[in-house]
Amino acid sequence: MSSPTGPLEGIRVLDLGQIYAGGYAGFLLATAGADVIKVEPPDGENLRRRGKVGGGAYYPFAMLNGNKRSIRVDLKTEAGAEVFRDLVRNSDVVFENFAPGVMDRLGLGYDDLREINPRLVYGSVSGYGRSGPYTSYPAMDLTVQAMVGVMSTTGFPDSPPVKAGPAICDFMAGVHLVSAISMALVARARTGVGQRVEVTMQEATYPTLASSLGLVMTPNRTANMTYRSGNRHGGYSESPYNVYKAADGYVAILCVTDQHWVSLGTLVGGEALATDERYRELKDRAARNDELDVLIAAWALAQDRQTIVDQLLAVRVPCAPVRELPEVVEDPNMWARGMLRTLDHPVHGPITVNHSPLLFGDGERADLNPSPGLGEHTDAVLTDILGYSEQAIADLKGQEVI
Amino acid sequence: MSSPTGPLEGIRVLDLGQIYAGGYAGFLLATAGADVIKVEPPDGENLRRRGKVGGGAYYPFAMLNGNKRSIRVDLKTEAGAEVFRDLVRNSDVVFENFAPGVMDRLGLGYDDLREINPRLVYGSVSGYGRSGPYTSYPAMDLTVQAMVGVMSTTGFPDSPPVKAGPAICDFMAGVHLVSAISMALVARARTGVGQRVEVTMQEATYPTLASSLGLVMTPNRTANMTYRSGNRHGGYSESPYNVYKAADGYVAILCVTDQHWVSLGTLVGGEALATDERYRELKDRAARNDELDVLIAAWALAQDRQTIVDQLLAVRVPCAPVRELPEVVEDPNMWARGMLRTLDHPVHGPITVNHSPLLFGDGERADLNPSPGLGEHTDAVLTDILGYSEQAIADLKGQEVI
Repeated sequence: MSSPTGPLEGIRVLDLGQIYAGGYAGFLLATAGADVIKVEPPDGENLRRRGKVGGGAYYPFAMLNGNKRSIRVDLKTEAGAEVFRDLVRNSDVVFENFAPGVMDRLGLGYDDLREINPRLVYGSVSGYGRSGPYTSYPAMDLTVQAMVGVMSTTGFPDSPPVKAGPAICDFMAGVHLVSAISMALVARARTGVGQRVEVTMQEATYPTLASSLGLVMTPNRTANMTYRSGNRHGGYSESPYNVYKAADGYVAILCVTDQHWVSLGTLVGGEALATDERYRELKDRAARNDELDVLIAAWALAQDRQTIVDQLLAVRVPCAPVRELPEVVEDPNMWARGMLRTLDHPVHGPITVNHSPLLFGDGERADLNPSPGLGEHTDAVLTDILGYSEQAIADLKGQEVI
Repeated sequence: MSSPTGPLEGIRVLDLGQIYAGGYAGFLLATAGADVIKVEPPDGENLRRRGKVGGGAYYPFAMLNGNKRSIRVDLKTEAGAEVFRDLVRNSDVVFENFAPGVMDRLGLGYDDLREINPRLVYGSVSGYGRSGPYTSYPAMDLTVQAMVGVMSTTGFPDSPPVKAGPAICDFMAGVHLVSAISMALVARARTGVGQRVEVTMQEATYPTLASSLGLVMTPNRTANMTYRSGNRHGGYSESPYNVYKAADGYVAILCVTDQHWVSLGTLVGGEALATDERYRELKDRAARNDELDVLIAAWALAQDRQTIVDQLLAVRVPCAPVRELPEVVEDPNMWARGMLRTLDHPVHGPITVNHSPLLFGDGERADLNPSPGLGEHTDAVLTDILGYSEQAIADLKGQEVI
């Protein structure tokens, strides 16, 4: 199931993850060599069920559950909970992203599970945490983006707030959980005991607002320094920094160093502009950003996207074409590196999927197996890991526990 | 310096991180109990220098460098490189987010360093990786957001592409690096040897587009299913799912289950709407989303933001107010949980900062120390860890190496 050279070789994980945060956490662990067993309810994980909407709704499940095994077990029955406890006795990690309290009500919270396996690392993700006044608040990516300030800092100053396209709160939470779980495994190697780790979507997303938080901390900012800064720097502390319309699309351009500006200024307005004292220092460029944007916008609009990018890259000015998603899926760099690949999925046929962003050792990526069918590995897991007899498995099936 | 109970107790890290990706990685490691030594060039790390722009530009450095020590050393001199090698001999982890090749040219690449410390874990973040056709492409958060499809999926369908407000590519890369480093430490506990780990901003961000990638994979989508979906679900597979204007602001509302819809529908249009067969199943609601949005928008516009949220929470419909950033910084939940706190900074005075999103054990957070001054700990580190004599340190200072 797992790469022979992955750093988590020998680590067994019970993945109770749903939708993106949990699913992604399990994917990062599985592709790093852990034996990840996805424990699904009788009708399948939420994201698997959403696939029934049709269209491309099947895809996120397929992309986040490769290299896992699936077992189907009804934790709401006592027999199902006992199967789960048997698995816990034979595992290193359990994680879940249910609402706070759900696992406790099933009798499967951390305090229950550590009794039967003191070496267990137990990870949970929730929207706002198991302490504090918001424990019961509903938390999905959209609501957390609203609560934590992602929406109010995204979009143009004269437009309504808009969510970030990607599900950043879900994914930030998922990968933070993986960091916490892995650190707890480092500690366990030293101490011999496991522990509980916790991540919230709200807290995992908050630091990403660093630039805009700097603006909150600016005492005398001017009226045009709105929190919703369009494509300008969220803290208005880099300049030029914007997205400009080209003849056939858009290009992102920014200057981090004074030399970047000299190179960009030379292209846009010749030496006169590049050496203009009014724009020489970042501090001054930031204050006069609107003037510079007018000049750069006029220069960009007359040219093709790629022409602009080629010129700027030749003089090492940071820039990039704004790509549409179908272009991104064809990205030659991610294909060359093995991040993107074609996988022959038993249900969906040949599909383009991504591997893990985590590279180890010489950078070669392990094999990637397709997302499992619901309960595809129930029998194998109960037989090979727990040593259940054929009769015991048949009985559990008869009771609709598995 | 570090929490006595952090999982990374006993791990020493050399943090060559810059701006956000590297700085954040070091922050997560430091707040988890590692001894993180920030190795800065003679004029300070890039983000520290950016603070000179004025206003709130100092703030991101202060928020990302707590619990670290700073030493100032010129790695471009042979004597400085030798100091660094001495530190490597006494450390567990080195990480950097320079452009690919920079460390090799300094003679301090992984192949050099593992010779002197085979247990070393060496982490690097770059925009596009050290292999593949894009190794030399300039990579900052803005350009990667453009390249990887964040911009083209963010914003309203009839508006230009716009960046996500938060620096998601930087922060996703940083926390992925922490996962990879921690996993390599898990492996080291088993094998006794370190390894190189790598993360790219492009690859760390790509999976966050899961919903929209599902749309790419949808063969017969309709013309109004644009990649830039405003506040609607990126894959158009949840409905209702949007942000609605209230009398005094905006509210995000979504329905994940059929029961959510029944509860929302009852409030918006009474039992007639809630039980309308045309909207009973998610599949049908998704197809008729525009009709539902008109009804919900009219209902929302007549009420205050908080009134809407209170009503919906009472019947357990996922929703949230769209908060402005100054509200977020006052969030009672993050203050109650110790994520936000006041820190008395020796330079900036009392400032609001965040702790780490990673919680361990009983969830109590360790002390948080302010970001260090440039080279504040140079003498202490060289004396205590490396055992340099006062004379040796004075000589290095005389040569302007430290």
